[in-house]
Amino acid sequence: MDKAAAWLKQTLAYAFENEQLLRQALTHRSAPGQPNNERLEFLGDAVLQLVVSELVFEETQNASEGQLSRLRSTLVKDTTLAEVAADLGIGEHLILGTGEKKSGGHRRSSILADALEAIFGAVYIDAGFAGAREIIKTAYGERLHELSETADLRDPKSRLQEYLQGRKMALPDYAMKNISGKAHKQSFEVSCTIPELDAVTTGKGSTRRDAEQEAATAMLARIGHE
Amino acid sequence: MDKAAAWLKQTLAYAFENEQLLRQALTHRSAPGQPNNERLEFLGDAVLQLVVSELVFEETQNASEGQLSRLRSTLVKDTTLAEVAADLGIGEHLILGTGEKKSGGHRRSSILADALEAIFGAVYIDAGFAGAREIIKTAYGERLHELSETADLRDPKSRLQEYLQGRKMALPDYAMKNISGKAHKQSFEVSCTIPELDAVTTGKGSTRRDAEQEAATAMLARIGHE
Repeated sequence: MDKAAAWLKQTLAYAFENEQLLRQALTHRSAPGQPNNERLEFLGDAVLQLVVSELVFEETQNASEGQLSRLRSTLVKDTTLAEVAADLGIGEHLILGTGEKKSGGHRRSSILADALEAIFGAVYIDAGFAGAREIIKTAYGERLHELSETADLRDPKSRLQEYLQGRKMALPDYAMKNISGKAHKQSFEVSCTIPELDAVTTGKGSTRRDAEQEAATAMLARIGHE
Repeated sequence: MDKAAAWLKQTLAYAFENEQLLRQALTHRSAPGQPNNERLEFLGDAVLQLVVSELVFEETQNASEGQLSRLRSTLVKDTTLAEVAADLGIGEHLILGTGEKKSGGHRRSSILADALEAIFGAVYIDAGFAGAREIIKTAYGERLHELSETADLRDPKSRLQEYLQGRKMALPDYAMKNISGKAHKQSFEVSCTIPELDAVTTGKGSTRRDAEQEAATAMLARIGHE
């Protein structure tokens, strides 16, 4: 385990009190006969969510709850985590079963992302919340601030509108499709149509506005402009 | 604000350094012209997730990641939060707009749940993670431990099987419906059929096992045995 411990010290400036935790965090479920990292990943995911939530909360004083959520998603999603994990070189320290090893598990994004979350969870157990926050900030580095700065904090409807205007296309048409539920527990379903693209998406929400934003989000995804 | 501050001190044994945070946490977005609690709720939700994650992690040493997730969901879902909030009597301290006030917003579950999460977020800012953890444990009280003790930690397939056996019914039939994606990124879709109930559900997952568990979860919901 000395090699992995040395790697962690060098890349993330952290040394475990209890090195067994690092071993477990690096152990994929395919490895036979030893505690794997799934439970630590569960814990680490929640630690990461809070650290990133706090960060975007602090850095974007004017962002709405919806904007905060979108920004957080970008930072904690598996593809971002896998990038961070790959940059750190976590792959060569993973403990995998024979099959996973042969089939390139050391480079598989989901395995890298999970192991990194597990390390965050392990550090949380080893050194508490402050220690985990520190290592997460070190792992993400500039990514944390760059994203807050460059993130498109506008809401999906505005982004869709601007996208279409930039291409001299007609604005989307939002139409109420369905309202269900009793007063104050209503659920709205709205469609978003862009005739020129022959594209229709729908969105649901507890207000008409939320449903439209959902439909616009789906449309941005549909036209590849997330 | 003295009344709300006194209430918080009495029910949750917490006094804010910065009382403005308490005021904001209790302010629904319907209230005109003042900072509302939506951003604090965003933060508080993440604080609550971590506190509950840690608790179920510690209390259930043998639970799998899936079991931990289910247990956490039960504790942090809106209906549970609203119960906790109502027990604390948060309703009479909410700051609402006129319309919400008239239509009974003080008793609406979603508003109660959101305000409680916002208080958790506000305490996190006011007193850090340790302070927030403390107030969350106080707010939930015995609920935290009771649920860990009584929660049905078995996986959905096992629970469905036992349910059917208890009623002398035939076991469910799981069938592969679809496999898509390349090797190691495959997605499986499985159906779960209970002929005697004329009920079919489907589930998707990155492994056959996960897809079957999803389908079983859907079936448990279908037959009202969640």
